[in-house]
Amino acid sequence: MSEVIATYLIQDTKHNLEKKAESISIGLTVGSWTDLPSIEQQQLSKHKGRVLSVEVLEQTNSATHGVIKIAYPTLNFSEDLPAVLTTVFGKLSLDGEVKLIDLEFPSSWSHVFTGPRYGIEGIREFVDVYDRPLIMSIFKAAIGRDLENLGVQLRNQALGGVDFIKDDEILFENPLTPFEKRITAGKEILDQVFSETGKRTRYAVNLTGRTSSLKDKARKARELGADALLFNVFAYGLDVLAELREDDEIGLPIMAHPAVSGALTSSKDYGFSHELLLGKLVRLSGADFSLFPSPYGSVALEKSAALGIGQALTEESAWKQAFPVPSAGIHPGLVPLILRDYGVNCVINAGGGVHGHPDGAAGGGKAFTQAVDAVLAGITLQEKAETSAELKKAIELWGAAEVTTS
Amino acid sequence: MSEVIATYLIQDTKHNLEKKAESISIGLTVGSWTDLPSIEQQQLSKHKGRVLSVEVLEQTNSATHGVIKIAYPTLNFSEDLPAVLTTVFGKLSLDGEVKLIDLEFPSSWSHVFTGPRYGIEGIREFVDVYDRPLIMSIFKAAIGRDLENLGVQLRNQALGGVDFIKDDEILFENPLTPFEKRITAGKEILDQVFSETGKRTRYAVNLTGRTSSLKDKARKARELGADALLFNVFAYGLDVLAELREDDEIGLPIMAHPAVSGALTSSKDYGFSHELLLGKLVRLSGADFSLFPSPYGSVALEKSAALGIGQALTEESAWKQAFPVPSAGIHPGLVPLILRDYGVNCVINAGGGVHGHPDGAAGGGKAFTQAVDAVLAGITLQEKAETSAELKKAIELWGAAEVTTS
Repeated sequence: MSEVIATYLIQDTKHNLEKKAESISIGLTVGSWTDLPSIEQQQLSKHKGRVLSVEVLEQTNSATHGVIKIAYPTLNFSEDLPAVLTTVFGKLSLDGEVKLIDLEFPSSWSHVFTGPRYGIEGIREFVDVYDRPLIMSIFKAAIGRDLENLGVQLRNQALGGVDFIKDDEILFENPLTPFEKRITAGKEILDQVFSETGKRTRYAVNLTGRTSSLKDKARKARELGADALLFNVFAYGLDVLAELREDDEIGLPIMAHPAVSGALTSSKDYGFSHELLLGKLVRLSGADFSLFPSPYGSVALEKSAALGIGQALTEESAWKQAFPVPSAGIHPGLVPLILRDYGVNCVINAGGGVHGHPDGAAGGGKAFTQAVDAVLAGITLQEKAETSAELKKAIELWGAAEVTTS
Repeated sequence: MSEVIATYLIQDTKHNLEKKAESISIGLTVGSWTDLPSIEQQQLSKHKGRVLSVEVLEQTNSATHGVIKIAYPTLNFSEDLPAVLTTVFGKLSLDGEVKLIDLEFPSSWSHVFTGPRYGIEGIREFVDVYDRPLIMSIFKAAIGRDLENLGVQLRNQALGGVDFIKDDEILFENPLTPFEKRITAGKEILDQVFSETGKRTRYAVNLTGRTSSLKDKARKARELGADALLFNVFAYGLDVLAELREDDEIGLPIMAHPAVSGALTSSKDYGFSHELLLGKLVRLSGADFSLFPSPYGSVALEKSAALGIGQALTEESAWKQAFPVPSAGIHPGLVPLILRDYGVNCVINAGGGVHGHPDGAAGGGKAFTQAVDAVLAGITLQEKAETSAELKKAIELWGAAEVTTS
């Protein structure tokens, strides 16, 4: 029997997790069980949820805390994420302290979610960069700035040699820097930098607007030569992301931004685990990149969660790997930590750590590249800084977190 | 200047809420301020967020707790909810303990959100019921049951004289009871009951499937004569609801189901307030009905939140009123409480309280009607029960919460 398995972190004030799990497995499927005539039980058995495991983590006077796993027959729902979420965490999300920490899909469902169009491998081919993490830079400020201002920012960032530059997620359709003009003007600038330096930097434009307008807008972006899309998936819905990914006329790499997702993941007792939402579900829904708060910076995520997201995005599965993009508070001195924690298959993403460089954004990009080179060459940032002026200035300003491999 | 005002419940471990508020108001708009040259400040001032108020609620050793209000210029975002949410609660939702408790929109934005198509007044005209709460009933169980089974359930519920019957939210497209057949078969049965009893009961069918398929499916539902749509808005996105509402070819009343919303509202420190999400935003996005956990039943919501949702759905504003539907654990004996708390402008919605009646669903519906009649006539349920057999049996089984008007 084909089933979706949900894992919950749950509390029971009646100290009977087995009973609670059983009641959930019935309540969210066939509705009732023990009071049904045996002929009905027979008819309904293939629809009934099953408790797979109940693990008690802690007992306090007020409640028993634990982890339960319940299997839901796929027969009960249509092949889409809204149906799955409504089944396994619809009513249940309203019923006391319960957090959905994982979903496992049967192999028969591998066609239901397309996963990333390009994935890590495809993106590497696209940018022609292998064996090192990609480097991405964010505009310093975008609201109220005109096209010329953003153009200068774009050029300076590209001169630092970064692989990607992404829009600010709060930049929407606006008269100063309209979507289509950002794409065409940006392309021109990046072509110009390429002709000067030989390095081609790609620009991810923020796809915004009403839900039903997104596909047309994204197709237009492709037509105009956009390199990639940034998308605030949690202001819309995961299925909206999935449908953008599935559209072959769009066909662009997609970066999922975590805006608003904190409302779903931050509580330790409610909502979704970070690993599930920003890792597995973003990957299944087709993002090639998932941005999330790094465990290092100012807006920091707990380390286990931040690493767990990375794992969910890259572990072996039916779907292509997506790039983990640990973000916020990243500066060149943190590169050794990022590489230790995520390996080469990640994107180093910085805003202030690029623009705040004493030599400006171009210096910041170079410092990041030098830091990556150092780590991959097995030397310390300090050593590398002796021959790399930009890195030297960066670590003088922000410090360096060396990682010893003893 | 036109602004959207966001109210947050927030904590600051540095015990400086003023500074934190100021930093949010700048970070989520112009990016930086004090270090900008005055000519840039001049150019950007109309884009800068403003702190309207900072109120300290509590100071503990670890943090200062308070409520802050920030005004965001509408100039900064496009006229859609995803843009607003990304601006006011995008990055911020990821940044420590902060809960979005209210959003106020400028009068210049009253065209941006359509609000309910029918609203309370329109729905009352539709069902031709005035001056009393509506009564709604839910199928007892739907998964794995065939059309005949659901048909019998539908008929029995309708015979009780309820105004609406709604699908189970976990009933998706399936071979046993497909969407279109549920509508046409349901219509036939309800027409039949109407010809027998003179009471026309309406059926809300669950609109499910991939996001981009919803509009066509909803138009088809209308074509087939569906009375209303049930929609799991939080498994999709509020803007998806808004676009369903705006489509004149659909034009059906919409019931917003709160499935999955607990992930966004349950924590006291994170996410959205119930009042904002299930009240104001559901109303603005165009639902005619908003279902939510009642403060009385098994899946109970804190009373102030449950009443706050009702207020947000019905208070004077630029948008039509939506029906509050306090749900879960409702039986006829609770009708006095519901009417005391919500007045006549609500929907009394029950599943077990209808089907669990000793005379079956038909008896349950009648008992609810009798309870409503009693309260509106100003007599106790006990008094009414003397001449109302179904109500008598209901309160013998479940008890009665009399409300004295001393």
